[in-house]
Amino acid sequence: MDKKLQQFLKNKAYNIRVSSLKMTSEAGSGHPTSSLSAADIIATLFFYAMQFDPQNHQNPNNDRFILSKGHASPVFYAVWKELGLLTDEDVLTYRKIDSVLEGHPTLRFSRTEAATGSLGQGLSIAAGMAYSAKMDDRDFYTYCLLGDSEITEGSVWEAAEISAYYKLDNLVAILDCNRLGQSTPTLHEHDLNRYAEKFSAFGWEALIADGHSMPELINVLDQARQVKNKPSIIIAKTFKGYGVKQAQDNEGFHGKVFKKEELPEILKKLAEQFPQAAAYLEDFVWAPKVPQADKRQTQKTISIPKPDYKIDEKMPTRKAYGYALAAVGDADNQVVSLDAEVKNSTFAEIFEAKHPDRFIQCFIAEQNMIGMAVGLANRGKIPFVSTFASFFSRAFDQIRMAAIGQSPLRLTGSHAGVSIGQDGPSQMGLEDIAIMRTLPNSVVLYPSDAVSTYKLVELMANRSDGITYLRTTRMATPVLYNTGEEFTLGGCKILRQSDHDVACVIGAGVTLHEALKAYEHLKKENIYISVIDLYSIKPLARDTLLSMAKKAKNKIITVEDHYLEGGLGETVVYALRNTGITIECLAVKKLPRSGKPEELLALHEIDAATIIKTVKK
Amino acid sequence: MDKKLQQFLKNKAYNIRVSSLKMTSEAGSGHPTSSLSAADIIATLFFYAMQFDPQNHQNPNNDRFILSKGHASPVFYAVWKELGLLTDEDVLTYRKIDSVLEGHPTLRFSRTEAATGSLGQGLSIAAGMAYSAKMDDRDFYTYCLLGDSEITEGSVWEAAEISAYYKLDNLVAILDCNRLGQSTPTLHEHDLNRYAEKFSAFGWEALIADGHSMPELINVLDQARQVKNKPSIIIAKTFKGYGVKQAQDNEGFHGKVFKKEELPEILKKLAEQFPQAAAYLEDFVWAPKVPQADKRQTQKTISIPKPDYKIDEKMPTRKAYGYALAAVGDADNQVVSLDAEVKNSTFAEIFEAKHPDRFIQCFIAEQNMIGMAVGLANRGKIPFVSTFASFFSRAFDQIRMAAIGQSPLRLTGSHAGVSIGQDGPSQMGLEDIAIMRTLPNSVVLYPSDAVSTYKLVELMANRSDGITYLRTTRMATPVLYNTGEEFTLGGCKILRQSDHDVACVIGAGVTLHEALKAYEHLKKENIYISVIDLYSIKPLARDTLLSMAKKAKNKIITVEDHYLEGGLGETVVYALRNTGITIECLAVKKLPRSGKPEELLALHEIDAATIIKTVKK
Repeated sequence: MDKKLQQFLKNKAYNIRVSSLKMTSEAGSGHPTSSLSAADIIATLFFYAMQFDPQNHQNPNNDRFILSKGHASPVFYAVWKELGLLTDEDVLTYRKIDSVLEGHPTLRFSRTEAATGSLGQGLSIAAGMAYSAKMDDRDFYTYCLLGDSEITEGSVWEAAEISAYYKLDNLVAILDCNRLGQSTPTLHEHDLNRYAEKFSAFGWEALIADGHSMPELINVLDQARQVKNKPSIIIAKTFKGYGVKQAQDNEGFHGKVFKKEELPEILKKLAEQFPQAAAYLEDFVWAPKVPQADKRQTQKTISIPKPDYKIDEKMPTRKAYGYALAAVGDADNQVVSLDAEVKNSTFAEIFEAKHPDRFIQCFIAEQNMIGMAVGLANRGKIPFVSTFASFFSRAFDQIRMAAIGQSPLRLTGSHAGVSIGQDGPSQMGLEDIAIMRTLPNSVVLYPSDAVSTYKLVELMANRSDGITYLRTTRMATPVLYNTGEEFTLGGCKILRQSDHDVACVIGAGVTLHEALKAYEHLKKENIYISVIDLYSIKPLARDTLLSMAKKAKNKIITVEDHYLEGGLGETVVYALRNTGITIECLAVKKLPRSGKPEELLALHEIDAATIIKTVKK
Repeated sequence: MDKKLQQFLKNKAYNIRVSSLKMTSEAGSGHPTSSLSAADIIATLFFYAMQFDPQNHQNPNNDRFILSKGHASPVFYAVWKELGLLTDEDVLTYRKIDSVLEGHPTLRFSRTEAATGSLGQGLSIAAGMAYSAKMDDRDFYTYCLLGDSEITEGSVWEAAEISAYYKLDNLVAILDCNRLGQSTPTLHEHDLNRYAEKFSAFGWEALIADGHSMPELINVLDQARQVKNKPSIIIAKTFKGYGVKQAQDNEGFHGKVFKKEELPEILKKLAEQFPQAAAYLEDFVWAPKVPQADKRQTQKTISIPKPDYKIDEKMPTRKAYGYALAAVGDADNQVVSLDAEVKNSTFAEIFEAKHPDRFIQCFIAEQNMIGMAVGLANRGKIPFVSTFASFFSRAFDQIRMAAIGQSPLRLTGSHAGVSIGQDGPSQMGLEDIAIMRTLPNSVVLYPSDAVSTYKLVELMANRSDGITYLRTTRMATPVLYNTGEEFTLGGCKILRQSDHDVACVIGAGVTLHEALKAYEHLKKENIYISVIDLYSIKPLARDTLLSMAKKAKNKIITVEDHYLEGGLGETVVYALRNTGITIECLAVKKLPRSGKPEELLALHEIDAATIIKTVKK
């Protein structure tokens, strides 16, 4: 093997160690020991294995890299310094408020592919990228560096499972097996075979190497690129804190930085331990293996033909979602649909029927599904992700991280609320509005009929700067709008209104139809209410709601098939605080149960009868 | 093998099939085909393998059973009918609004151990029960029936990992491998060896059987009870819809019920397929293998000695949590602590140091940690579960299900908010209040000093009817209260008050201290504010807040280190709607980043300076 190359790589690893130590000591916080274990791997990856153009990060044929063990961010920033894209001064801004080099990588640093730091999520993102390469017939590889503590996360095994199922031989994971977690040794410590057995059983090619030996790393990285029909993992035996004697392989040094005053001595000893690397004189001409760049498709505006629905025709919004999704799939071949083995409930199957090659069956593994969608979005796909609304709670940490990474995911949760009926509380999405509202820069939509669903899906397709959530209903509801009706993010629709309204009732989804029933009933008694379809919960049409309330004796009644906390009602109450508007909120306020939809709407007092009672009160 | 026993079991399985078909057809919904595949397993489990007293469900030495594939609830209800605890009429109430026999099992049916229906969660709960048996030196076994679709959920592999690590040889899983999921065949269909390889690699004893053969099932169930030092899984080859020809092993029958008018013909054919079982005449005297019952410890009131903190002494609330937890551990030997490999951050390590045998290291696998806590609570333990506040989002579906199951979990999330500083957004709990508030019957606590933390932990220990969440802060904050101060669920503390307050500022955690700083600053300018410590967010001291606001010119300012959505501010705004109180909410309103805590409090305008500015405005 090329001695000069090895010396070159050793010097790079040495430099990465020095930078990692310097930046963490300067910051006064961070994870130097978790970085030191990974330095040789990172050097060999970026300066030997990976084929990419450091100057053109968005070359669509570049190999990609995901740092799943996000706390080892120093090695990531350090390698970009070695690549000439960051300066010495840059890396010393690590963790400072104006720096893009955050404690865990975020998209503020342009070389970061995905925000990491919540452990066990990177492999799914990498799998999404690798899947995208297969879809586009591109030759690039995706590499993912994992820590050994994080692979206890179930999400890692979801990713392992699905990557093997889809034969992602363009995916290479590297396990930095440094034996020590934050507070305790890992499950298998340095028993590398245990990890290999697990990954082998999950259908992976498992390769073992000394993670501090350049020849061994080069060898397994070469081998990994030869593996066909399955993903590969390199299980690299490393030592936490490698190169700093007092910390190396010792407990108690996780997330501990060395004091600035200790640093000169530590760096001196590091140089003594790696004399050749420290004294290295460049005698190897490194050139990146730059793949041919072709033009990556930029997203165009997606527009779909008008739907073909008639007023009062009954259709579940979840089904209208399926049709709209198929239509946006017609309009743009970058649209992909991911579903967690409920495609016949979410109606993603309508998309699949038209675009089978762009439908990704994610099986019952919601966490990995979100991670893959992040990876696909990163590679220019337009992912729509569907499952039951309740089961997005399973992947909420992944969704939270996707929001931190500003990933343009489109999420659709079906089976919202108690109105699903007999299946009972486990299947009822009753907190989905609350959780999706918390995400920075999110949009939360909740249509009530097929036309608005269809139009909102078109808007979702065109939104590229954050997470957009669409909530759909199980039961069929009548079409309310003409197919020419326009909808906007942050809009609402006034469905009923008169000059003598005694209250303004705001609903969405199934409760809007209850409000309309209440309207008809009250009208017979010469009591008038205005009725608003609040199809956009975030952003909210505050000004419209306020002016409508003012025209209705300053009274609002909200009604929603969702828990009170964090739902539509609290959103409206917050937006209209300090205005003098009186607001009553009808919502699910106790644990639901199995029963018929109409029985449950009544039991939880979110039905027409309760609206009527509340109006009269 | 005993022929009479086999005939008896076959008859039980037949009866279970008949009941499952009858109840789902009567209900008009449900999952008969997923029940039919499991009927032989269930019959053999309950009438052969399990040692329990059907009449005394709470006998602490009973073997336990968790139905992880909760949609197969009909077999569960049917077997209890066979055991004589439900009548024919009872099972026909399945899924009706007044029935305790819900679509997916809930605790409303007294024989249910844990609410299931969100897939992939049962094994963790079973592991918690098995762990509890080990702790208490009890001989009972815990059985868990899994579906083959659900084992793609990562949570299953978390449970597999941890159960093997803790050598839970009293845990027996049975995989009902019926080949078909909801909308598509499973990953490995009937390739049973693939499942066996995976579980073996994870450290389990894997046994394969024909899931419709009584002799084979008896054999592997016997074997499973002999396995030492590791958990066992029986991988049972079954056919979905077994016994109903048109559905058996066919796609398209998941969650599809047979029409009531078809039922006589289906039952007739079922009898023809199993003539002996259908014509069975009881010639086997079955008696349950009832274990000796001893008295299970009932929970007593836990009281702990006063803490030893001095006013103004600085201590992080997370550390005070650790001390309080150790103290409740002293007071009651049923208290257990579970932590996801961050014990030196959450300070669960203080408990571990005093009670090492009651500390459960759950590694970085939050979903399994919650599931195990549910299992432990079911067996009378008092579980306290800790990790970073942000990482409870990883297990939110499990927490949601625990709330549906009314499990008395005590959850403590450390590292709340932007004030954690340099680690950045991935580690900041900013949506934890919002998600915990949505849970039916939850309590959400957010102390600001060591004394209140300590006292609230004592209250948590004594709360046994739902989920209690405690939010702690990373940085040290000064002690505010004398050690004799009393706290209540639903209380608040008035820290500053005068006759000429211009606003009432409500904070909790780090922002309360900012409010106190603002108070001192404003006082110098002769501007007075009242300051309230809102340590209990749910339930909320609405009346106190209202009367305080009235004394402060009807003005409230809330300030919190949490996203606006679903947080403390929205809670207060909702509670005080329609009262004419003016409320301004300071909260984190955009994506945060790395930086110093004080810089971030300023950047997100939740610091003393912003409070002062807001008061003056």
